[in-house]
Amino acid sequence: MLRRDISHTVKNKSYLQALFVQECRNYGKAYTMVHEEPPGPVIKTNIPGPHSKKLLKDMMEIQQCGSVNLFANYEKCAGNYFADADGNLFLDVYTQISSLPLGYNHPALLNAFRCDSEVRALVNRPALGVFPADDWPRKLKNVLLSVAPPGLRHVMTMMCGACSNENAFKAAFILYCTRKRGGRTTFTEEEMKTALLNIPPGAPDLSIMSFKGLNNNGAFHGRTLGTLSTTKSKAIHKLDFPSFKWPVARFPEYRYPLEACICENSHEDRECLAHVEAQFQKWEKIRPIAGVIIEPIQAEGGDNHASPEFFQGLQQICKRRGAALILDEVQTGCGPTGKMWCHEHFNLPSPPDIVTFSKKMLTGGFYFKPEYLPPQPLRIFNTWMGDPSRMIMLQEVIKVIRTEKLLQLVEETGKFLKCGLHALEAQFPFMINSVRGRGTFLAFDAATPELRDNIIKYLRQNGVLGGACGIRSVRLRPALIFKQKHAELFLEILNNTLWQLKFSCRS
Amino acid sequence: MLRRDISHTVKNKSYLQALFVQECRNYGKAYTMVHEEPPGPVIKTNIPGPHSKKLLKDMMEIQQCGSVNLFANYEKCAGNYFADADGNLFLDVYTQISSLPLGYNHPALLNAFRCDSEVRALVNRPALGVFPADDWPRKLKNVLLSVAPPGLRHVMTMMCGACSNENAFKAAFILYCTRKRGGRTTFTEEEMKTALLNIPPGAPDLSIMSFKGLNNNGAFHGRTLGTLSTTKSKAIHKLDFPSFKWPVARFPEYRYPLEACICENSHEDRECLAHVEAQFQKWEKIRPIAGVIIEPIQAEGGDNHASPEFFQGLQQICKRRGAALILDEVQTGCGPTGKMWCHEHFNLPSPPDIVTFSKKMLTGGFYFKPEYLPPQPLRIFNTWMGDPSRMIMLQEVIKVIRTEKLLQLVEETGKFLKCGLHALEAQFPFMINSVRGRGTFLAFDAATPELRDNIIKYLRQNGVLGGACGIRSVRLRPALIFKQKHAELFLEILNNTLWQLKFSCRS
Repeated sequence: MLRRDISHTVKNKSYLQALFVQECRNYGKAYTMVHEEPPGPVIKTNIPGPHSKKLLKDMMEIQQCGSVNLFANYEKCAGNYFADADGNLFLDVYTQISSLPLGYNHPALLNAFRCDSEVRALVNRPALGVFPADDWPRKLKNVLLSVAPPGLRHVMTMMCGACSNENAFKAAFILYCTRKRGGRTTFTEEEMKTALLNIPPGAPDLSIMSFKGLNNNGAFHGRTLGTLSTTKSKAIHKLDFPSFKWPVARFPEYRYPLEACICENSHEDRECLAHVEAQFQKWEKIRPIAGVIIEPIQAEGGDNHASPEFFQGLQQICKRRGAALILDEVQTGCGPTGKMWCHEHFNLPSPPDIVTFSKKMLTGGFYFKPEYLPPQPLRIFNTWMGDPSRMIMLQEVIKVIRTEKLLQLVEETGKFLKCGLHALEAQFPFMINSVRGRGTFLAFDAATPELRDNIIKYLRQNGVLGGACGIRSVRLRPALIFKQKHAELFLEILNNTLWQLKFSCRS
Repeated sequence: MLRRDISHTVKNKSYLQALFVQECRNYGKAYTMVHEEPPGPVIKTNIPGPHSKKLLKDMMEIQQCGSVNLFANYEKCAGNYFADADGNLFLDVYTQISSLPLGYNHPALLNAFRCDSEVRALVNRPALGVFPADDWPRKLKNVLLSVAPPGLRHVMTMMCGACSNENAFKAAFILYCTRKRGGRTTFTEEEMKTALLNIPPGAPDLSIMSFKGLNNNGAFHGRTLGTLSTTKSKAIHKLDFPSFKWPVARFPEYRYPLEACICENSHEDRECLAHVEAQFQKWEKIRPIAGVIIEPIQAEGGDNHASPEFFQGLQQICKRRGAALILDEVQTGCGPTGKMWCHEHFNLPSPPDIVTFSKKMLTGGFYFKPEYLPPQPLRIFNTWMGDPSRMIMLQEVIKVIRTEKLLQLVEETGKFLKCGLHALEAQFPFMINSVRGRGTFLAFDAATPELRDNIIKYLRQNGVLGGACGIRSVRLRPALIFKQKHAELFLEILNNTLWQLKFSCRS
C-alpha cells in the first residue's frame, strides 16, 4: 500500500469529469447540491494556482493577508476534500485549523437551516446575557451539557476560543479573590475605586500560569492580550505587544518512542511537577497564581504530549494551592482524540475546574465546577455571549457523532493511521520521527525545520493539505469523518512525498 | 399627543388576536412567516412574567445569568417589537444592546440564506486568514469597503467588538515599535527571546490611553483583559481582574443644555485636551502611549458627548505624539447617529488612524490607514478572523439602508424624538434632564440613579424596553427602522411613565 506509484495524483486527473456527482435533494423548490467525495486528490496547477495568486494580490490591497495559503471554492468542497479556486482538489487533514468537525458541506449541516425557526435564530442574534430565546436553557442542557466532560454540569457560551479562555481566567480570579475575602461577596469603597484605576486591591496583581515546551515552543491559548500573556508558541505571535508578566512552568519534553523511554519520561514528569511547585512558591510574593491553564496536548506549540500521571499530579498541586486548573480543549475537544474530551484519557480523580472549548464545537465557551459560578451577574458577560446559530449546528454535529459512531471511527482510523506513520518513520528514519498522538489527533517530527516546511509544501503539491506546528512538526487534524480509506490515501501520498524529498535531497 | 390616557397599554390588549398577520411567502415549499408590527405594546403579565421567571430559574442551574431580563420568543418578534416568553409585546428601543440594525425578523435577512451558496458560507466557516473563499476579497471590497469611513480603504474582520479593539491595539503597537526600530522589520535574537518571556524589548511596556468620564464612569471598550484595561465604565466590570496599568485622560463633562453653556463647555474641551497632553508627557518615561482609544459617544459610561473641536484637537495631539487615534465605533457605527459613522459629524481634517466596529455591523473588525498594515503576516491573526455568514447579513443590511434611505430616516426620526424628549424635560424638570444625542442615538438623565432604575422598570411594565447607562442615564438605541410613529408611541409611554412615577413619589 505504501509503495504505489508516485504518479497517483496525476492518474486521478482522469476522474475529474465524473467527480462531482450531484445528488439533488428536493426541498420545495430549493435544491441542496451534495457533492460526493472524489476518489482522491486532483491537482491541475502549481500550488497556489494562478487564480489563488491573483486573488491574494487583490486581497493584499485591503489587508495584510500573507498568511493565506489558498482561496477556496466552498461550493465544490465535499467531506474530507477541499476544493481551491483553481479547480484543484485536496485531501484535507488540517480542516481549517482543526475547526470542521464533519468536514465540508455535510448534509446534516446544510439542512440545519431549512426551518424558519433556525433562520430566525440566525438573524435575530440576541444579547444572550439579557434576552435569550425561551429555548436557550433547554439548548444549553440538551446540547452543551449532553456532551459535558464527566462531572461538569455548568457552562457559559462565548464567541471564540480566546474569549473562552479570557473568561475562564476571570472565573478563576473571581473565586480566588472571593476566597481571599473570606467569602465576602460585597465590595469595599476602596476596592470599587481602585478597580476603576486598574490598581490593587480592586484590580489585584494576580497571575495565570501557563507552560513552555520544547525550545520555548509551548502553550497556545489565544491572541488577545490576556490570553497572549499565557501563549508561548512563537515569537511572531507576541512581538511588540505588552504582556502581563506571568509565570511559566516547564511542559514535559518526552523522548520517543515512548515505550522505549518510560523511565526517562517519568523522571521528566516529576521534574516538571517540581518546577510547577517551585513557580507557585516563587510567585506567591510577586503575583499569586490564581489559575493554571494547560492544553491536554500542546498543539500550536508542536503537538507536545504529557502523561496522565503528569496531569494527575498537576491537578493535585492546583488543588493544594487553591488555583483553578483550566484545561484548554479548544483544539483537542469534540472528539479528535477518540474521546469527546482529551482529558478523559487522563483518569483524573475529579473533574478539572474549568474546561474551555471552541473550534470543532463551533461555539466557544467553558464548562466549570459550581464553585466557579460568580456570586454576581455581569462579571462574566459581553454583548453576544455566543451565538445561537452555532448551537443549532453543534446540535446536528452531536447527533451525527452519535448516530454515525464517529468517536469509534476516530479511534479505529487513528490506530490505522498511527500504525502507518510508524511504518513510515521506520522506513525514513533520517527524515521523520517521534510519531505521536491520540485518535486521529496525530503528529510527527521532521529531521529539520526546513524539511518539515518542504514536507508540507510537497504534500500540498501532491494533493494533501497538512498543517505545521512547533518548529519541525507536522500535525494531522482531519475531520471526525476521516475513514480508513482516507488514511490509506494520505499514507500513500506521504510515502510518495518522502520518496520525492529523499530523491531531491540526493540530487 | 403627550397627554393621552395612561391606560393606553391596557387598551391595546384588545388588539391581541389580530396582532400577528402572517404573510406567508412561498419559496418552493418553504414558508417565511413575516409578522406585521402590532400597533403598540401588549402587556399581559407582570414583567418579568411567570414563564420568564421559570426559565430564569432553570438557567440559573447552569450558569450565573442574573443579568437576564426576559426570555424572548423570536418567532413572534417583528420589526421594532420584541415578544417575550409570556406573550407580552414590547416596543424595543434597546435592540439587544444596540446590535440589531433592522430590528427583528426583517424579510431581507430572513431571506438571506435561501440560496445554497449562502448556507454553504454558513456551515463551512473557514479560517479566513488561511483559506478564505474565492469571493472573500470581493466581499471585503463590495460590502465592508463600500461603507468605509471616508478616506479609509483597508479593513480586517474579527468576531466581536472586544476582539476588534484588541487587534486595533496590536496594529497600534506594531506601527509604534516599527517606527521606533527605524523601520526595521526584522527582529533581533533578544527581541524574539524576550517576547516569549513577556518582557521588554520583545514585549515592550507600552500603553493604550483611554478616557474616564463623569464620576469615573467613562470608556467602555470591551471585557477581555487587554480591552478591559481601557474600560472605565463600572467597577463591577473590572473587580478582581488584573489590569495593565495604563494611562487615562479626562473625557469632557459638559453642562446641558449645550446651547446655554457654550463658553463653559469649550473651556472644558481645552482643559481635557491639556490633560491628554499631560498624560503623554507623564507616561513617556513610564509606559509610552502607542495609541489612544475613544468612543465618539461614551455609551456604556452614560452617553457622554464631546464636541467636534475636542476630537479635532485630540487627533492633532495623537499625530504630533505618534500615537494611533483609535475610534471605537462598536456602538455608534452603522447609522444610528444619522451618518454611517459617528465621527463623520466631527469634520476631522484627515481620517482617524483606526475605526473599530461590531454590533449593528454584525461582523467585528476595524478599518485602518495603510501605515497600519503589519509588515509581516500572522501578527493580526486568529482561527476564524470573522465569519462570512455575518458578511452575507451585513450585505443585506447595507442594501436595505440604501434602498430604504434609513440614514435619512434616522435623522428625521431622531429630530422628532429629541424634540419630544426636550418637551418632556421641560415638563418634568425635577425628574429628567440633559437630553442629548445624534440621530436616534439619544439619552437623557434622571434626577437620581434610583429614579433612572424606576423609569426603566416602569417603562418595561408599560411595554417599552429601554436601556440604562452610566449612573443615572437612560439610553435609546432603536433599530434603524424606527419611525416617527414609533417615536410618538415611545414619547407617549414615557410621558405616562413619568406621570406614574411623579404620582407614586407624591403618594
